[in-house]
Amino acid sequence: MVKKPFRIGIAGLGTVGAGVVRVLQSNADLIAARTGRPIEIAAVCARERTRDRGVDLSIYSWVDNPLALTEIKDIDAVVELIGGAEGPARQLAEAALKRGCALVTANKALLAHHGYELAVLAEQQGAALMFEAAVAGGIPIIKYLREGLAANNIKAIHGILNGTCNYILTEMRETGRSFADVLKDAQKKGYAEADPTFDIEGVDAAHKLCVLSALAFGIRPDFEALNVTGISHISAKDISFARELGYKIKLLGIARRIDEKITQAVEPCLVPADSTIGAIEGVFNAVFVEGDFVGSSLAEGRGAGAGPTASAVVADLIDLARGFHILPFGVPARTLRQAVRGDAGDLLSRFYLHLVVKDRPGVLADIAAIMRDHNVSMEAVLQRGRDPDKPVSIVITSHPVRQADITRAVGQMASLAIMKEKPRLLRIERF
Amino acid sequence: MVKKPFRIGIAGLGTVGAGVVRVLQSNADLIAARTGRPIEIAAVCARERTRDRGVDLSIYSWVDNPLALTEIKDIDAVVELIGGAEGPARQLAEAALKRGCALVTANKALLAHHGYELAVLAEQQGAALMFEAAVAGGIPIIKYLREGLAANNIKAIHGILNGTCNYILTEMRETGRSFADVLKDAQKKGYAEADPTFDIEGVDAAHKLCVLSALAFGIRPDFEALNVTGISHISAKDISFARELGYKIKLLGIARRIDEKITQAVEPCLVPADSTIGAIEGVFNAVFVEGDFVGSSLAEGRGAGAGPTASAVVADLIDLARGFHILPFGVPARTLRQAVRGDAGDLLSRFYLHLVVKDRPGVLADIAAIMRDHNVSMEAVLQRGRDPDKPVSIVITSHPVRQADITRAVGQMASLAIMKEKPRLLRIERF
Repeated sequence: MVKKPFRIGIAGLGTVGAGVVRVLQSNADLIAARTGRPIEIAAVCARERTRDRGVDLSIYSWVDNPLALTEIKDIDAVVELIGGAEGPARQLAEAALKRGCALVTANKALLAHHGYELAVLAEQQGAALMFEAAVAGGIPIIKYLREGLAANNIKAIHGILNGTCNYILTEMRETGRSFADVLKDAQKKGYAEADPTFDIEGVDAAHKLCVLSALAFGIRPDFEALNVTGISHISAKDISFARELGYKIKLLGIARRIDEKITQAVEPCLVPADSTIGAIEGVFNAVFVEGDFVGSSLAEGRGAGAGPTASAVVADLIDLARGFHILPFGVPARTLRQAVRGDAGDLLSRFYLHLVVKDRPGVLADIAAIMRDHNVSMEAVLQRGRDPDKPVSIVITSHPVRQADITRAVGQMASLAIMKEKPRLLRIERF
Repeated sequence: MVKKPFRIGIAGLGTVGAGVVRVLQSNADLIAARTGRPIEIAAVCARERTRDRGVDLSIYSWVDNPLALTEIKDIDAVVELIGGAEGPARQLAEAALKRGCALVTANKALLAHHGYELAVLAEQQGAALMFEAAVAGGIPIIKYLREGLAANNIKAIHGILNGTCNYILTEMRETGRSFADVLKDAQKKGYAEADPTFDIEGVDAAHKLCVLSALAFGIRPDFEALNVTGISHISAKDISFARELGYKIKLLGIARRIDEKITQAVEPCLVPADSTIGAIEGVFNAVFVEGDFVGSSLAEGRGAGAGPTASAVVADLIDLARGFHILPFGVPARTLRQAVRGDAGDLLSRFYLHLVVKDRPGVLADIAAIMRDHNVSMEAVLQRGRDPDKPVSIVITSHPVRQADITRAVGQMASLAIMKEKPRLLRIERF
């Protein structure tokens, strides 16, 4: 008995879209063996028809309007690879789901901003909404959380969710070069976009963390609930001090459940250089999950790029073609709670503080007094160079302290006349 | 609309069985939210009824014969946690599947030896056969391979698949103690069984590799096709020499597809100390997968223990209760090929060779000549101590050489009169 093909339409033929076509062409037999039926591209849609995408697209029907994909007879799924939280991507997603057509998307911005509404719509219409490719293409982390660890009450997740930032931080450490310098280089190599804002300011990682939090904690994706800090203020000196102290700097996404409150943040942190997360280098992503029975579980893989992301998109298509249909966030969307936001100020953490000051007698005493006045207990102090004519760096690591306390202490220091640069306060995470 | 409960029978109430009950009790609400229906324990079965297992079992029906579980009215799945490739475990598996009842098992030995026949039976009867807990409980690696990376042609997998061995090797390195000494300690702590043979001789890891290879390459699990070497011959000196050379020793399971041939082996290998796999310590397991589109992807978690293994068993139950039904090995069992075994002798690898010899002039020249005669090119030589009265260690690392060549060279060296111990030849893997 031969089952009928699983018919899809693809909207968006950038790197990932072309990659999806390549996977479906190269591994067609393998995929048919695994699904029991071929996956057939019914039509594709992209603005430019003639551009060479390194893959034969002439054999497919083209439509001009992505919405037309949802109207194709016998279409089983639409693959949305247009991108962006609004506009054509959102319109296509809504149109497909409204018609009861499965939607497969790699669009983390769309999910972070409209994931809840889309999931409700999908469930109303009995349509599947799949997004394995939206977070860390090279890691099937959506499936990992939604199914693999579904027996667990998840306590926390943390991870390296942006390959561009991890590449930049890795390069800065290995070469001693500045952020701006390495960024320029990453852009040349295609590891960073022409407009890198979403990556380097942590927005992309935050979109992904929203999606993971929703799956882990049964909450609505809520971009506004995140504290987001990027890496553009990290200096070569910070990297070098961190190394001296036995740490590496990584942009982390961290979500924690404490009682029924959830704190979610994306920020650069110091992690022990010899830790597992410290060993995740370059364009790799990693996600650590802490569950009540599984303990700590981790997945690592390439974060982006045509191959890994297409692999994730096609995994969703294979699931659908195999007849697998699961609720988008693993529980009925209507039961997803609006998360109660934990107060980050109450979090106890170790911190790294980098002060650039005029080298005057008594500077350290003044700083130490401020720390003491705010209940901040110091673990180590590092001071390099002594030159009354030049600013010097003082680096302090703290014992675990309330974030609110050290933030206030640093605020007070920032107003001292001797302060030559904005103090840089980074969390130290030892998980 | 409330769906009817998903009813299960549990055979075997050891650590894992009791763990499964504990997960189902502790997270009952969470699990019901995720499956849309409660998972209900219809009956349990174990030899001893009265032993305190730290969990309330008095509320369940007990049966004396595991086979009776398959005859319970409206039973949806039987959970086999008896263990062993033959006997009651195999009988229960066959009986359940023959009745069309889903079987969930953590039994890697059963799958390594009879996985093919059981999968054929399951498919004939339209029954599910699930075994997430059979490999690395803390990592949903079955799902990872069978679904998450299903778009890929898998080229290779390798991993640390036995927590006991990894614990022993980690302890040996950190404390400098001997294998026998650390083993005794691990037994006291419950990290090694009273009869540790299956663990330390690599059999347990080999069972798991069989299962992973079947999923990765679409071949029948075939325990006989594996080359298996354990860790009991590894000395404290080997660990220390490896460290000096920048390596750690890990018991690895490695399966590679070269053309249509598959080589599968479990053996202790040297891996770079600062590599990701080198950072997997203690009772942790990790599996690395190399796919044609995803590139390298890795999952890490606890390998054994009640919590992680129960987490995996319950994940399978949740999948089933959600209505998910997939072929046991992801493709029709009848299409699983009998693997053509690759010739390990043809593999090009770097090697570590540890010789314990009488310290006589010209020893190194003799050894070097044998290496040269067998086309083995040396990378580094380490010799410690010079004492004509005591045996000395000579450690050699090779450039990539054919395994057959260096094996022959070592065979010739072993027969030299100056050789005081059996030469130890370990592969160096840099992945």
